[in-house]
Amino acid sequence: MKRYEQFADEIATLIRQGVLAPGERIPSVRQASRHYGISPSTVFQAYYLLENQGLIRARARSGYFVREHARRLMDEPGVSIQPADPAEVEVSELVFSVLDSLQDASTVPFGSAFPSPELFPLSRLASSMARGLRELSPREVIADMTTGHPDLRRQIALRYMLGGIQLPMDELVITNGAMEALNLGLQCVTRPGDLVAIEAPAFYASLQVLERLELKAVEIPVHPREGIDLDILEARLAKLPIKACWFMSHLQNPLGASLSEERKADLYGLLKRYRVPMLEDDVYAELYFGSTPPTPVKWFDDEGLVMHCGSFSKCLAPGYRVGWVAGGRYAPALSRLKLMTTISPSIPAQAAIADYLQHGGYDRHLRKLRHALEAQQAAMLAAADRHFPAGTRLTRPGGGYFLWVEFPERVDSLRLFRMALDQGVSLAPGPIFSATQGFRHCARLSHGHPWTARSERAMETLGQLLASF
Amino acid sequence: MKRYEQFADEIATLIRQGVLAPGERIPSVRQASRHYGISPSTVFQAYYLLENQGLIRARARSGYFVREHARRLMDEPGVSIQPADPAEVEVSELVFSVLDSLQDASTVPFGSAFPSPELFPLSRLASSMARGLRELSPREVIADMTTGHPDLRRQIALRYMLGGIQLPMDELVITNGAMEALNLGLQCVTRPGDLVAIEAPAFYASLQVLERLELKAVEIPVHPREGIDLDILEARLAKLPIKACWFMSHLQNPLGASLSEERKADLYGLLKRYRVPMLEDDVYAELYFGSTPPTPVKWFDDEGLVMHCGSFSKCLAPGYRVGWVAGGRYAPALSRLKLMTTISPSIPAQAAIADYLQHGGYDRHLRKLRHALEAQQAAMLAAADRHFPAGTRLTRPGGGYFLWVEFPERVDSLRLFRMALDQGVSLAPGPIFSATQGFRHCARLSHGHPWTARSERAMETLGQLLASF
Repeated sequence: MKRYEQFADEIATLIRQGVLAPGERIPSVRQASRHYGISPSTVFQAYYLLENQGLIRARARSGYFVREHARRLMDEPGVSIQPADPAEVEVSELVFSVLDSLQDASTVPFGSAFPSPELFPLSRLASSMARGLRELSPREVIADMTTGHPDLRRQIALRYMLGGIQLPMDELVITNGAMEALNLGLQCVTRPGDLVAIEAPAFYASLQVLERLELKAVEIPVHPREGIDLDILEARLAKLPIKACWFMSHLQNPLGASLSEERKADLYGLLKRYRVPMLEDDVYAELYFGSTPPTPVKWFDDEGLVMHCGSFSKCLAPGYRVGWVAGGRYAPALSRLKLMTTISPSIPAQAAIADYLQHGGYDRHLRKLRHALEAQQAAMLAAADRHFPAGTRLTRPGGGYFLWVEFPERVDSLRLFRMALDQGVSLAPGPIFSATQGFRHCARLSHGHPWTARSERAMETLGQLLASF
Repeated sequence: MKRYEQFADEIATLIRQGVLAPGERIPSVRQASRHYGISPSTVFQAYYLLENQGLIRARARSGYFVREHARRLMDEPGVSIQPADPAEVEVSELVFSVLDSLQDASTVPFGSAFPSPELFPLSRLASSMARGLRELSPREVIADMTTGHPDLRRQIALRYMLGGIQLPMDELVITNGAMEALNLGLQCVTRPGDLVAIEAPAFYASLQVLERLELKAVEIPVHPREGIDLDILEARLAKLPIKACWFMSHLQNPLGASLSEERKADLYGLLKRYRVPMLEDDVYAELYFGSTPPTPVKWFDDEGLVMHCGSFSKCLAPGYRVGWVAGGRYAPALSRLKLMTTISPSIPAQAAIADYLQHGGYDRHLRKLRHALEAQQAAMLAAADRHFPAGTRLTRPGGGYFLWVEFPERVDSLRLFRMALDQGVSLAPGPIFSATQGFRHCARLSHGHPWTARSERAMETLGQLLASF
């Protein structure tokens, strides 16, 4: 354990023991550095880790504070999967039957994959759409051989630049959401039968895509806080002809884990050593709770091995279906593959988002969105503490809008799912996140919707159903 | 030869000999029926065929007239390909290098795949976009598990109904343009290595898609007027394990050929007998010049074997990227595959088109568009007569915005393409339309842009270059 991890642990213990109470200010970086005799940068790293773990938060110009729900009764889950042999993926039918049942607008949407549309600036986007369409020349309306709307690409490249990544415009391909970017990326570097390293648990759509492309999954366990197990990954890379990795280094879906910067650098080192390309699915990039934007693995990518996939679907404009990939050395192949499959994303949607990024106050919107999601997380964590049975474990991600719940072993989450649906509450059962249908006693709960009395009652309902197992 | 074909031939001869002059009215159906002693329906069939061949046109309430350019100096090309063995497709690089060079806005766009954006009601669409967005509920903005915007699907189903096709809404999947529909359709019914029957010449994107999916092409020759050779198709279906057909039964790209209704019925008979699904690429459905909308093969489809793919990209809103597939028995599989690849087409674009179809005067726009394309075709045919060398053959399609030119054998269209580009004129050289890079002395010319003095000069330039071979 590094010094900064040790120090973070000490602070975490103080928080868990209640020595540092929720809402309380913790020592400033300077104070802590002097008091504990460690360098300011070590303190800073430790605080960054604690922020990432959801235990503290920074407030601009007033220091670091213990988060309201930081002292919780329920533990965090550990790693709950054993490494297994590469597996054919057969999960689509299960996923579809679960997702189908989430269509009902009257259910409490704890199973939803999207945050509430009410959290997005829809009417402001509509104005941007009107202006964007007015400013398009007729020629620009023809979806011909382009990698995307030039203004939108410029705006995205600008945001990379602010994050410290100098991205040649050529690397950027606009896609129909991140899902298309990920599909194309995988097709660029694999053939049917190839092995692909994915996380376990993993975002169910990645499992569906593997199944569709007849790829085999090498599941790498993910720690709910620290992210993917790099030792196991390295062992697998050394032994198996893995053709691609598909990972979420930040706010991994469903666990919410984020790799530390150091571990991101280590991960990139592995990619480089084994010359394996990586799809970095970073659709929650903007949904961090702390004050520091995360750095993607792409930041370390000096050889163009990382295809960094982003999207506006989770943070700005769900139905516009605009995403992108910063494709590294694969950008030309990605661009051509896109032309052969969908030609181009919808041009009005691109023009609207380009205009919004330039004039719409995107960063102000993002700050509001993050605050809303953080408050909703606190509310859901508190409700889980009140209603869920002892022995339940819960993640506490440093961003996003998902909690991962590990129920006591006796709970069958597929049965729970059906029982809850009957009572008007949805959730995403664990097995849809596994190539091998593991995680039977787990579920993902979304706090992406404003918290209401109805949400509270829904948590109570879940608690009652859980008691019946 | 059927009686109506004989009769059509007699009229065609009269037109070619100048007995019936351009602009002249031809006998009404009743007159002809009485005069030639054949039934009115036979006359009607013959006139429909002549209309399809571009020789006559109907004017509402005033009868049939010889078209202005009907008496032309240049002959139509014949079938110029011999059936060959199933072939691996390797054309993408060539196609991309040609398409890349079409990006230059300053060239005369005879090589373009899209009609001029000035022919589309862009500002009317922008109003529909504004209204469409206003009327979307926030919930509808979440691209979840849907087969498309409900209003848009209703409007499309309505148009099918007016065309005599009762389409269950469930069959309709909205896609990112027809290109996605065709990609998904092919993936639903094939695996790498499978054989797919395509036209020769074929739309180059179909060749790229086959190459990408590692499918083998069985090329079926297309007659420039009558369409695909059904005898050869049947022989191939009998002998080879063809897994799918990908055909354009109407205004085939690049030849502009359309199958007669009778031949469409025969084609469907073959599909049924050999139980082979067909992708019907019908993106030019609305661009017929006559008065009678064409009937797709889908009309005959009582077993759900036809995936009928349509789009608004060529007739209303190029860059919106909204298409669809009426998927027959494959609709559920198509819908799921779409969810795994791009989730959903852009919702604002769908809402805008739905609103436009309901309120925007789509049929009025289409009539204007057809008239513009028809006038532009006449202008291009006339210019070709003036400038192209003797021995050149030209199609005369009954719709759309492409002419297929067969130059004298000595002409190398790839060289012509590069020479013309140097002079600021683009064209689509023949080999990009062939799995085996045939059609070296052929090219596709677009008359999709308003005809100007510059277009005329460009034709003259082509004529001069052709003389140099």
